[in-house]
Amino acid sequence: MRKPDRPKQAAGTRESPWSRVRARSEAPPRERAQRAERESSPRRSEGEDNAPREVRLYGLNACLAAFAKRPEALRKVYLTRARIPALKAVLAWCVKHRLGYRIVEDDDLDKLTASRHHEGVCFEMLRATPIDLATLLASQPEAPAASLLLWLDGVGNPHNLGALLRSAAHFGVAGVIVPDGSSLDVSGAAARVAEGAAEIVPIARAPASERTREMLRAAGYAIAATVTRDGASLYAAPLAARLALVFGAEGEGMSRALIDAADLRLTIPGSGAIESLNVAASVAVVLGEYWRQRHAAPSRTSHSPR
Amino acid sequence: MRKPDRPKQAAGTRESPWSRVRARSEAPPRERAQRAERESSPRRSEGEDNAPREVRLYGLNACLAAFAKRPEALRKVYLTRARIPALKAVLAWCVKHRLGYRIVEDDDLDKLTASRHHEGVCFEMLRATPIDLATLLASQPEAPAASLLLWLDGVGNPHNLGALLRSAAHFGVAGVIVPDGSSLDVSGAAARVAEGAAEIVPIARAPASERTREMLRAAGYAIAATVTRDGASLYAAPLAARLALVFGAEGEGMSRALIDAADLRLTIPGSGAIESLNVAASVAVVLGEYWRQRHAAPSRTSHSPR
Repeated sequence: MRKPDRPKQAAGTRESPWSRVRARSEAPPRERAQRAERESSPRRSEGEDNAPREVRLYGLNACLAAFAKRPEALRKVYLTRARIPALKAVLAWCVKHRLGYRIVEDDDLDKLTASRHHEGVCFEMLRATPIDLATLLASQPEAPAASLLLWLDGVGNPHNLGALLRSAAHFGVAGVIVPDGSSLDVSGAAARVAEGAAEIVPIARAPASERTREMLRAAGYAIAATVTRDGASLYAAPLAARLALVFGAEGEGMSRALIDAADLRLTIPGSGAIESLNVAASVAVVLGEYWRQRHAAPSRTSHSPR
Repeated sequence: MRKPDRPKQAAGTRESPWSRVRARSEAPPRERAQRAERESSPRRSEGEDNAPREVRLYGLNACLAAFAKRPEALRKVYLTRARIPALKAVLAWCVKHRLGYRIVEDDDLDKLTASRHHEGVCFEMLRATPIDLATLLASQPEAPAASLLLWLDGVGNPHNLGALLRSAAHFGVAGVIVPDGSSLDVSGAAARVAEGAAEIVPIARAPASERTREMLRAAGYAIAATVTRDGASLYAAPLAARLALVFGAEGEGMSRALIDAADLRLTIPGSGAIESLNVAASVAVVLGEYWRQRHAAPSRTSHSPR
């Protein structure tokens, strides 16, 4: 794993009226190296459980969406000179609130974000506080109003998590449930791929337990597990308007207990040429079909005798 | 960008009866460094256009699928000790055909593949020869039999290319058309994400030209462009059984000329909360709907007067 270095300050920017970052390039090399080491990952809060409180977001849409939703969570901004126009409002906020920002080179951002997909911008921000399931459910319209939740029993790949959050936002998913105590945090990579959707769809933490299922059912949700084989064909199954759609992790799939406890098991039919769809593709397909049944399918009543 | 180094030979493996790789660790350091530099990217054929003839595939499913389809294209195998059982048939092939293979450490594979998603295996293989559109069309059942093609006007991200190839294989897409002369090659990263699908779906090269559209129409295909707005709702549009579905590149989308020349413009409806779906998610959703209309929707004849 490459260690991101402290970004160099671009020539001529130190005196910029925009910048509130203390000039630190005078520090001796060893001290600078130690600082680079410390700064290579987001700060951790002292005395807590050592979980990082901050996350380095990157990608223009991801950063702008996070700033629009939670400007008070912004801690530091790194940007290339070319991004100044797109980030004018953010820089003005930094000046007003005495937050540091720094004009850097593309290479510096490669290192800071450990990615080449930063699009010239990186924000250090406090993580959004995860909500619990009760809070998520309380925010929903009461049964029997339509409401769609995604329940992820795993999904560790940040690219997949980002991609499915984007699909969830597109199709109006009301919330995403992720495992309690898992590492399923929205990383910078996931947020970049989500293109801002990580700020749109509420994410709640809950264990994959009977209690969680009970809470969902008490709130009027049917639970549908998406499995790679032996489920009802997605296209033959009427989907409940109030639905929690469960998806398993890449590779191991979801726990047998959760599959067995679901009200419905769904399989996306296909050619059989490959074992399964990618989890983010599966999510997109199932969300699309739910949308079609709610908004575009001929009304069920047309099946009644004429 | 990290430069992959020459993989170290694992201790005690040099004398393995499996290995035909010449022991080279005696070479002086500088020569070894130069060799590492040369070996850091797949070999290029001499005197040609400098395009690499070989590709480093990684990921177990991607490698096994490529070997099953084109064993004669195999040039070299790198694997961790833990992968020996899963690759027994491949190693037997190497011995029989005097191909080199090498037992290496996970770290070596990280460097060789410039990825941490290699799953303990990397194959150097000759690239599959791309086919042309006429060959692809000649391989299809004659009109009016159903046949679905994907036509990519761009899509440069290897993760997206791999993901959409996997969805294409799942939903039985007959072929994928990529731009002529583009860099849209199936890289190791794309093949890994495709999980073997890159060997299942034929890939043809063709320019985004009127001639290509004429060839498709002469073969009975309707051309549908997928656009982020102002198209017919995917769920309201009957899809032709013989269909070329066009998708644009991430970011810039597809060329205006191609959108205007299409027989149909399709938009995936949604909440409007975000600008668009990811291209691989869009492909999955549209392919799913095509599948539903062909295999699962009530017969069109039910609309005739009873």
